[in-house]
Amino acid sequence: MVKEREDFLVIGKDLPKVEAEAKARGECKFAGDISLPDMLHGKILRSPHAHAIVKRIDTSKAKRLPGVKAVITHKDVPQQLVWRTYFFTPSASVRDNYILEKEVRYVGDRVAAVAATSPEIAEEALGLIEVEYELLPAVFDPIQAMQPDATLVHRMIKRGDDEIKMKNNILAPVNWVIGDVEEGFKQADLVVENEYKTISVHNAQMERTTVTCQPLPGGRLEVWVPTQNIHGTRIDLAKSLGIPNNKVKVHRLFCGGTFGVRSQASFIEAICGFLALQTRRPVRIELSREEMFLNGGRHPMVMRLKTGVRKDGTFTALDIHWIDDTGAYSATAESMLSLASGFLLSMYRCPNMRVDGYTVYTNTPPRTAMRGVGNPQQNFAIEQQMDIIAEKLDVDPLELRLKNHVREGDRFYGQGPDIVCVVQSSGTEQLIKEGAKLIGWEHRKAVTPYKNQPWIKRGIGMARGFHTSSAASVKPSDFCLDYSGAAVRVNENGTANLITPCADSGTGNLSAHAAMVAEVLGLRYEDVTVTEADTDFTHFDSGTHASRGVYAQGLAVFAASTNAKKIILDWAARILEVPADHLEARDRRIYAKTDPSIEIGIEEVLRIGHLQDWGTPIASASVRAPACPPHFTVIFVEVDVDTMTGEVKLVRAIGGADVGTVINPQAVRGQTIGGLHMGMGFALTEASIIDPVDGHVVNPNFRDYKLLTPLDMPKVETILADTYEPTGPFGAKGVGEGATNPVASAVANAIYNAIGARIYSLPMTPEKILEAIRNKQESAGNKRG
Amino acid sequence: MVKEREDFLVIGKDLPKVEAEAKARGECKFAGDISLPDMLHGKILRSPHAHAIVKRIDTSKAKRLPGVKAVITHKDVPQQLVWRTYFFTPSASVRDNYILEKEVRYVGDRVAAVAATSPEIAEEALGLIEVEYELLPAVFDPIQAMQPDATLVHRMIKRGDDEIKMKNNILAPVNWVIGDVEEGFKQADLVVENEYKTISVHNAQMERTTVTCQPLPGGRLEVWVPTQNIHGTRIDLAKSLGIPNNKVKVHRLFCGGTFGVRSQASFIEAICGFLALQTRRPVRIELSREEMFLNGGRHPMVMRLKTGVRKDGTFTALDIHWIDDTGAYSATAESMLSLASGFLLSMYRCPNMRVDGYTVYTNTPPRTAMRGVGNPQQNFAIEQQMDIIAEKLDVDPLELRLKNHVREGDRFYGQGPDIVCVVQSSGTEQLIKEGAKLIGWEHRKAVTPYKNQPWIKRGIGMARGFHTSSAASVKPSDFCLDYSGAAVRVNENGTANLITPCADSGTGNLSAHAAMVAEVLGLRYEDVTVTEADTDFTHFDSGTHASRGVYAQGLAVFAASTNAKKIILDWAARILEVPADHLEARDRRIYAKTDPSIEIGIEEVLRIGHLQDWGTPIASASVRAPACPPHFTVIFVEVDVDTMTGEVKLVRAIGGADVGTVINPQAVRGQTIGGLHMGMGFALTEASIIDPVDGHVVNPNFRDYKLLTPLDMPKVETILADTYEPTGPFGAKGVGEGATNPVASAVANAIYNAIGARIYSLPMTPEKILEAIRNKQESAGNKRG
Repeated sequence: MVKEREDFLVIGKDLPKVEAEAKARGECKFAGDISLPDMLHGKILRSPHAHAIVKRIDTSKAKRLPGVKAVITHKDVPQQLVWRTYFFTPSASVRDNYILEKEVRYVGDRVAAVAATSPEIAEEALGLIEVEYELLPAVFDPIQAMQPDATLVHRMIKRGDDEIKMKNNILAPVNWVIGDVEEGFKQADLVVENEYKTISVHNAQMERTTVTCQPLPGGRLEVWVPTQNIHGTRIDLAKSLGIPNNKVKVHRLFCGGTFGVRSQASFIEAICGFLALQTRRPVRIELSREEMFLNGGRHPMVMRLKTGVRKDGTFTALDIHWIDDTGAYSATAESMLSLASGFLLSMYRCPNMRVDGYTVYTNTPPRTAMRGVGNPQQNFAIEQQMDIIAEKLDVDPLELRLKNHVREGDRFYGQGPDIVCVVQSSGTEQLIKEGAKLIGWEHRKAVTPYKNQPWIKRGIGMARGFHTSSAASVKPSDFCLDYSGAAVRVNENGTANLITPCADSGTGNLSAHAAMVAEVLGLRYEDVTVTEADTDFTHFDSGTHASRGVYAQGLAVFAASTNAKKIILDWAARILEVPADHLEARDRRIYAKTDPSIEIGIEEVLRIGHLQDWGTPIASASVRAPACPPHFTVIFVEVDVDTMTGEVKLVRAIGGADVGTVINPQAVRGQTIGGLHMGMGFALTEASIIDPVDGHVVNPNFRDYKLLTPLDMPKVETILADTYEPTGPFGAKGVGEGATNPVASAVANAIYNAIGARIYSLPMTPEKILEAIRNKQESAGNKRG
Repeated sequence: MVKEREDFLVIGKDLPKVEAEAKARGECKFAGDISLPDMLHGKILRSPHAHAIVKRIDTSKAKRLPGVKAVITHKDVPQQLVWRTYFFTPSASVRDNYILEKEVRYVGDRVAAVAATSPEIAEEALGLIEVEYELLPAVFDPIQAMQPDATLVHRMIKRGDDEIKMKNNILAPVNWVIGDVEEGFKQADLVVENEYKTISVHNAQMERTTVTCQPLPGGRLEVWVPTQNIHGTRIDLAKSLGIPNNKVKVHRLFCGGTFGVRSQASFIEAICGFLALQTRRPVRIELSREEMFLNGGRHPMVMRLKTGVRKDGTFTALDIHWIDDTGAYSATAESMLSLASGFLLSMYRCPNMRVDGYTVYTNTPPRTAMRGVGNPQQNFAIEQQMDIIAEKLDVDPLELRLKNHVREGDRFYGQGPDIVCVVQSSGTEQLIKEGAKLIGWEHRKAVTPYKNQPWIKRGIGMARGFHTSSAASVKPSDFCLDYSGAAVRVNENGTANLITPCADSGTGNLSAHAAMVAEVLGLRYEDVTVTEADTDFTHFDSGTHASRGVYAQGLAVFAASTNAKKIILDWAARILEVPADHLEARDRRIYAKTDPSIEIGIEEVLRIGHLQDWGTPIASASVRAPACPPHFTVIFVEVDVDTMTGEVKLVRAIGGADVGTVINPQAVRGQTIGGLHMGMGFALTEASIIDPVDGHVVNPNFRDYKLLTPLDMPKVETILADTYEPTGPFGAKGVGEGATNPVASAVANAIYNAIGARIYSLPMTPEKILEAIRNKQESAGNKRG
C-alpha cells in the first residue's frame, strides 16, 4: 500500500519512542504506580504441594484479623472455569482453571486470597488461613506424564463450553502430513536423525505484575493491568466474573516488557476483580518476583527430527516427533505446538513432511506464550540439523540454506497445512550474503584467538529463521480473532491524537503508529499524541502479539489516518476552492498537486473548520490483516569457547532483519539487538529449574535465574534488508519475534565450529560443553584406538 | 426528526438517571474525590483590598518553609491575559485577567499561590508572603462606576487579541432599534414606565470547586475540574498557559451543580495548571465555601421599561434602558446584556422596540453566567410590567399575555435583532390555560385564608417566559461556537457505550442521551453505558449551557446512534440475507419490517460480527444545531403574605413546561421543580451582599446566604405541554433554564395580588414588603385625606 511516494518525511527516520523522554524522567504510569483512595491490598495463599486436594479450609481466624476485608477460597468464587486466552475464539479457548482451586496442581497454585487495608495485614492473614490437603501423586516430566498410569493433572477441562473428559495428560496432538514421507525417505541419499531439547525459560520481563481493580458506578469494574490486549482482558475477565463485558473497563498502561506472557490472563485479574466487586473497594495485587516465576515462560520441548536429503542438497522428507510441556495449566498451549509445527514446515522447501506432536500437562508452573511461540524451539532443532546435513554433504551451510529456504511464492504453513498462505516478500538471501561478508564467513574455521591461551577456541556460526507478522488466519473465526481498529482525532490546532487500543510492550509499536499517522496526515512526528486508552471507547484489537503491532495494527492506523486525511482535505478544498482529490498534505500544509503555490497550513485549516462549526475530524477504521507475512531474520555469531572451563564468550553478532519497509530504523535495530540478547540467554544460561522431587521452582529470582547482562553482550551489528511487503502499511511487516528465533541455533553452530562438538539441549552450559568435548575426544580416541 | 414512530420503548418513560444508584451509594467521582500519589496542595493568597497595586511582594520566607514546593506571583506567570470564555469564538472573547494580578480589583482577588505537600503547610506559607499594596479608589455601584470621574477598574482589556484601552468602566453597550419607538409611543393609548432592580445571587452549587492538574508524559497536562465544557476548558487553559491545546487533557467529572458558573473558567484552573507544570507534580486546589462566593452569580441589573399599548391591548412600543454590573472581571459579560435584550424583545409581539444598555465593571466579585443568563432579570421587569398594564387596561393578565405572547411563526430575537430565528413550536397557550384551571385563576382575589389571622393575605400570581435551547447563531463563528459531537460503540455483547464529551451538571442530560441511544438502536435503557470521557478522544462540544443538553447535544447523539444503527443493520442484513433498509431494530432484536418472523437478537448479531472480524461498530457524528428554539414556561404561584411581619409563605406552585417531546418526564419535572426552587430563592431571600464601604462579601457562606430549604417549598404541581419541536431530536427542545426564569415575577405578581402593593426590586424581603404596604397605606391615606 502506498509505494508511490518514497520521499517520506517521517517513515524511515530514526526517531525516539514517543514516550522516551517521559520514561527517562520516570513520568510514565506503570501498573505499579496505580494508587487509589481507599484501596485494599490483596495477597494470594499458594499451595506448598505440587498436587493435592484442599480437604478443609478454615478462614475464620484470618477474617477476624483487624483490617481484613475479605478472605475468599474456591468455595466463594464462581463455579466455572475462567477464560484466559484473549484473542482465541471462544470455541478454541482451552479453559482449565477456576479463580481459586479446590484441586491444586503445582507448587504455587492459588488456594485462597485476602484483601486487607495494608499488604502487611494481608500477608499476616494468609498465615491465619488453615488448610488441610489430601496429597495426590504428581508428575513433573512430560515423557512420564504421557505414560498410561500417570496421575491425571486434569480430569476435566473445557474447550469453549464443551466439556472434555481427560483420559490422559495429552492436551493437543498435532498430526499433520504433507505429501508422502515414507516415499520421500526412499528418494533420499542421506537420512539424518537427531533429538533436540529445550528447557523452560522465563519471559523475565522487568516489570512485576500489579493488578488493580476498582468498582465503578453502574456495577462496572475498572481494571489496570499490564496486558498485551486490553479488549481481550475485558471480554475474558467479564466472562470469568460472570458479568456482561460492557461492565468491565480496562486501561492501557505502559508495560515494562511482556514477551508473550501478557497475551493471556495471569490468574490474578479474576482474583483481584472478584475481591473488588465483593468489597466494593479498589483492590490491588502486586506479585513478588518469586510469584512471577509461578506463571509464564517458554514451553520446553523434546524434538526428534528425521531429514531425508539428496546429494544435491534437495530435501525429500522431514519427519518430526515432538512433545511440548505446558505445565499445570494451558491457555495458549493448543496453539503452541501447531504454531511450532507450522513454523518448522515453513523453514525449507520439502515436498514430504509429517508432524507427530503432543502437548502434555505436568504438575509444574503453567507456561505461556513467549517471544517466538514455538519458533525458537523448532529453530534450535532445524538449524542445527541443517549444519549437520551440510557437513555430511560437505557443502557450505549457507549454500544449503540459500538453495532451500522458503521465499517469495512459496507456501507458508504458519496457519497449518491446510490453509494456503504464500510468502510475498523475503530478504533472506540478501541478509545471508551481507551477513556472511560482514562476519568473514569465508575465513571461518576453528581458530585459537589468543596465543597465550591455546585452549580458547573461536568459532563462527549462523542460523536463519523468521516469525509470522500477525496471526491472521485466512478463514476468520475458526481459531483466533485477528483484527484491529484505531481512530485519529485531528485537533483544533492542527495536531493529531492517535486513539488506539493497542498495547505497547515497550517495543515501540505505538511510536511506529504515530509515525504512520504523521506521514499520512503530513504532520511532524511530534504533532501526534498517542492518547491514553481504555476499552470503553476504543476499537477492538486482537492484541499486541504475533509480531502484529507494526503490521496488522499498523494497517488499522494507516486506514484511520487515511480517513482522517480525507476530512481535512475536504475542509481545505472548501477553503482553497480546489477539489479535494487535487490536494495533498505534507509538512504541515495542504497544497494543490498541480500548483503547490495554492496552499494553506494544516493548522489554519483546522482553525477555520473549528470556528465554522464543521465538526470534529475524528476518523476511524477496523482492519483485518489480509495475510500473516513472515519477517525473516539471519543471525551470525562469533564465540570463544574455553575448552578448559566450558565457558562460552560471545564475541561478535550480526543481526539481520527483513521487516519490509523500515518504519523506524532505530526501533528495528533495538528489537534486533534485544532479540539477540534474549536468544543468547536462551542459548547459554537461562533455565527455570523445577525440583525433580517436589516440583518447586528452584530459582525464582534474578540472582539464581541467570539473565545475560550488558557485560555479557558481544559487539553487535545489524543489517536491515531492502524489501517491501505488498500487504503491509507502507510495505512494512513484523519485527519483534523474528529477532530471537534463530539466535540459540546460531550460537550452537558457532560452538560446533569452535570445538567440533555439538550440544543438542539448552541451555548450553559449561558442563554440557565440557561433556561434549570429552565425548568427542573419547570417540576420537576410540576411532584412533 | 423521526416523528413517525410514537410507540417508543424508552423515550417518554420515567427512568432514573443513569448514575442514580451510584450517586446514592456514593460511588460517583466528583472533583473533590481526586487524589493522586505525590500530590501537592495549592492555596491562593487573596487581596484584602478592593482596588490596589501590588507594590512589593516578598515570597522568600514562604519558599523557605519546609514542604513548600512553589510560590508564584504575578511576576512568575505568563504575561498575557488568560482565556476563560469556553464557547465564544476567540474574536468575541473578552480577556481581562492574568493568572495572578499585579493590580487587584476586588476583595479576594488573586495575588499569589503556593503549592505544598499539605494544605496546612500551604496555608501557613500564605501567611509568610509579605505584600505591600498601594491603595486605589474603588467603586462598588454600577451607576457610580458609569460616572466620568469614576476610578478605572481596568485600563486595558482584550477582545480576542485586540487591545482595548478603557476610557471608562463601560464594557459592552447594547443599542438596538427595531421599528420606530417614538412613532410607537405616539400610537399608544397608554404608556407605562417603571424601574426594576435585581441583585446578585450566587449559583450556590453544593459542590465546591476542586481543581487537580497532573503533568503527563510528553509535556502534557491532565486536568480534573468540574466544568460544563471539557473541550472549552482544554482550549482556553492551553492558551492561558501558553502550550499547544493538544497538550491539555481534561476529564469529565460528575458535577454537584453548575448553574452556569462552570461554563467559564473559574480563575483557578490556570493557577493550578501552572503550579503543576512548574513543580512537575500533581497539584490540587480546593476552594472553601467563602472562596466560592468570590466568583460567580447572576449579574445584578437596573432596568427601566417604558411600554406603549393600545386600549385593545396591542403593544405599540417598548423602550428599554438598563445597566448590568459584571463586577471586577468579565468573560461572558458581553453576551449577558445582549442575550437579556434579545430575550426581552422576544417576550411579546411589538413592532417598535429599542434597547439602550450598558455593562459596567465595578470593584466587586466577578459575576458569571447563571441559569437563565439575563432572562430572570428581564422577566422580573417585563412580567410585572404586563400585570401593571393589564390592571390599567382592566383586562385579565392572562388575556393580555395570550393576545401578545410570541408564538409559532413569530421572530425570536435570541441571537439579536438582525438574525432571523422563527419560533416553530410553543406550548404557552396550553400551559396558561391548564395552569389557570389548576390554580383556580378565575376565583383569585386577595383573600384571608386563616380566620384567626386576618393579617395574613393570600394571593395568586403568574408569569410566563422561556429560555433558548442552545446558543446556535444562524451565522456560525461570529460570536460563539455551537456544535456537539458524540460516538456510539456497540459492544461485543450487544450493549452500547455512549462516548460523549458533554458534561452533565446533575440535570440528567446524559441520561436523556442514553435514552436516545437505546431508542435508536432498539436497546434497553440499561444496555447503554455513558462512558467516562476526556478531551483526548471525544468530539468537540460547545458545552452544557444555554439549555442545549437535550436539544443540541441530543442531535449529535441521535445522529451518532443512527450511524451506529446503520452498521448493525448492515451486519444483520448479511446474516439474515435481507437488505438492510428492510430491517428495523427494536427491543434488542432486528427484524424484517415486512415479516417480523425473520429476526435475530442484536446480541447475536454483534457476537457473529465480532467473531467474523467484521470490525468494531463505532459510529460518530458532529452536529451543529439548526436553530435555538425557545422552550416556554408558565408559572403560577399562590402565596400567603403576613402583613404584620412582611413574611411571604409559598403555598402552592404550578410549573408548566413546554419542552417539545418529553424524553424523560421524571427528569423534566425535576428540572421544573428545581427551577421553581431556585426562582423562589431569587424572589425572596437570596442576595450576595457587598459591603458598601470596603467592598467585601458580607455573607459568603450558607449560614448567612439564605437558600430556601425543602421546608420552605410550596406544594408543587407540574404540567408538561404536548408539543413537538421539528428541529429537535425526537422533537425535543431544552428544559433547564426556562424553569427558573419567570418564577420571581410570578411571586411578585402573587404578592401584589395578596397585598395590592408591588415590589420592584429583589429580593422581596419582609422589610421591603412592609415598606410597600406602608407606602400603599400612606398613599391611600393621602388619597382619602
